[in-house]
Amino acid sequence: MPIQRRHLLKTLAATALAAPLAAPAIAQTAPQITWRLSSSFPANLDLLYGGATSFAQYVKEASDGRFQIQIYAPDEIVPALSNLDAVQAGKVDACHTTLAYFWGKDPTFAIPTGLPFGMNARMTNAWFYEGGGNDLVNEFLAPYSAFALPVGNTGAQMGGWFVNPIHSLAEMKGLRIRCGGLTGSLLERLGAKPDNSPMADIRGHLANHELDGVEFVSPYDDEKLDLAKVAGHYYYPGWWQPSSAQHIVMNLAKWQGLPKAYQAMVQNAAAQANLAVQARYDARNPAALRRIVTQGTKLHDFPADITDAAYKAALEIYKNASASNPKFKKMLDAYMTFRDDQYLWWQVCEYTYDNFLIRQRAKESG
Amino acid sequence: MPIQRRHLLKTLAATALAAPLAAPAIAQTAPQITWRLSSSFPANLDLLYGGATSFAQYVKEASDGRFQIQIYAPDEIVPALSNLDAVQAGKVDACHTTLAYFWGKDPTFAIPTGLPFGMNARMTNAWFYEGGGNDLVNEFLAPYSAFALPVGNTGAQMGGWFVNPIHSLAEMKGLRIRCGGLTGSLLERLGAKPDNSPMADIRGHLANHELDGVEFVSPYDDEKLDLAKVAGHYYYPGWWQPSSAQHIVMNLAKWQGLPKAYQAMVQNAAAQANLAVQARYDARNPAALRRIVTQGTKLHDFPADITDAAYKAALEIYKNASASNPKFKKMLDAYMTFRDDQYLWWQVCEYTYDNFLIRQRAKESG
Repeated sequence: MPIQRRHLLKTLAATALAAPLAAPAIAQTAPQITWRLSSSFPANLDLLYGGATSFAQYVKEASDGRFQIQIYAPDEIVPALSNLDAVQAGKVDACHTTLAYFWGKDPTFAIPTGLPFGMNARMTNAWFYEGGGNDLVNEFLAPYSAFALPVGNTGAQMGGWFVNPIHSLAEMKGLRIRCGGLTGSLLERLGAKPDNSPMADIRGHLANHELDGVEFVSPYDDEKLDLAKVAGHYYYPGWWQPSSAQHIVMNLAKWQGLPKAYQAMVQNAAAQANLAVQARYDARNPAALRRIVTQGTKLHDFPADITDAAYKAALEIYKNASASNPKFKKMLDAYMTFRDDQYLWWQVCEYTYDNFLIRQRAKESG
Repeated sequence: MPIQRRHLLKTLAATALAAPLAAPAIAQTAPQITWRLSSSFPANLDLLYGGATSFAQYVKEASDGRFQIQIYAPDEIVPALSNLDAVQAGKVDACHTTLAYFWGKDPTFAIPTGLPFGMNARMTNAWFYEGGGNDLVNEFLAPYSAFALPVGNTGAQMGGWFVNPIHSLAEMKGLRIRCGGLTGSLLERLGAKPDNSPMADIRGHLANHELDGVEFVSPYDDEKLDLAKVAGHYYYPGWWQPSSAQHIVMNLAKWQGLPKAYQAMVQNAAAQANLAVQARYDARNPAALRRIVTQGTKLHDFPADITDAAYKAALEIYKNASASNPKFKKMLDAYMTFRDDQYLWWQVCEYTYDNFLIRQRAKESG
């Protein structure tokens, strides 16, 4: 072996001996990780489902492909409504859902998603990030071995599709309305009959008059239901969902075990997804609404006595739940105190400005 | 040398020979980078200034300290209004600013920040991220060798502080009002005299009646001006700033030269800062407004003839600027088309819901 080559080998060997000290340091801060994330939303609801795919993409890009999050549709690993159990058991690393889906376990789950007569979407974000909301949500989720971050919002939703127009509270009596969770309790107090039929059956049920109405999301998603011909009366606003937030819910130990840089990437990516999903709904809803109306669907606002009665019913539900559930009371009180403060300020600039512009545009268009 | 040790050395040497191929790959994707970012905002405006410090912190954490962005206050490297020139010349890597500060170069700069009678903050984000807004802004900025991302918004601003109440458009005539950029042109058309005094002199000028009014931001920032005793009439809303976005403006070549993972971190961090700054304003403004009113300041909305005249004046300004400036026309048309669509949808759910809750709370409080 020529002397030069031997020297080179020695040097390389010394480098190699040093390497085991350095390499793990890099490996620790930027390990290759693959997570499984189960979605509670069907892929054809592309904006909701897309909150998770965008989130995963942002994390993948920021980590240079080292942190991969694989998205599974409902039932690929677990059913949509078993996602929280699966996260808690570590069967999946994370899920993408609206926390309200789990209100049957505890009504407190409904609050972070958005409450009837609660805050609008921007206020909800102020509460999450700067009003202690995210901390309260995660304190509540800790016993479920879960840690959640907001990753999207639909904004205020529509009030749903009805076979016949509704002229007063009296006409709500007996109406069979497909709706979810807390909204069912609310509509029940107005005399309606909440229904849980699978979404796939809705159109048929409305056509056969087995159902009188259905509440879903907002124009962009609702358009896909193709309900114009079977339920041509479209009501607004969905006071039961003035904000509907989605969350990434991670197994707490998995979250805590992430390198700090990956935790930062997850937080940044979740924030970007939160902005992106809201922006996608906002950007697409106007054209969808225009198409819906052009096809002959009639737009109505709810009669005042219905909204007033719903408001009273919501207060009763909150009072009852607060009396029997200290966790609900704690989160509700924080949420409602923040809401009242937000509307105090909102009515001064945001609302007054929106009001002027909406009136001005109405004048201009005739 | 025992055979076993020689074998080990050979193995290590082989590993070491492979290493030079792998190591630079890591160095390329995660290099140590330090950027200098010059702020256009004084540090005592903690929410505005904080948009940049939060952005830098998010990037630092996600990059595990490899990508550091150092923030410099105005005049530390360059004056606030020279930041764009400094970015273009590569004197700093980036700046944090409102693009409207540079409207003297071209009025098109005013649009991304927010236009009089333009979109509210949420609509503006929908335009930026999903309506082609960010792409249009960066197409416009390319000749300035700059690339920008939104990193915050104040939301709709207040209309400012006045020494005396204003009862009608006629009373605007001759009023000396401290204000910025496009707002000055607007108020001039209403008969007022825009003023550019440094903020530090404002209180004295109002006390001496050398100034009649000043427009600034919203309650949390405005409270720091301590104007209650010299200009106790506080007007809303600031229709000239229904949204006021801040941007991180990067030198284009520096942006393009970043590793893809760092570009992703910057985009994610900017989005989180965008959400955070808005959330901070929203969370802090209600208490600040309450303190301002408690100290005796009178709240007023602008008389309708003033707002109507301002609306007409804004349309004239846009018409004139569009006639002489194709870049302005291109961005304005895109922005206003998007605005009209947004308000079409906004008035259905968001506005109707806010309207109900604001009226309901007014009823309850007496």
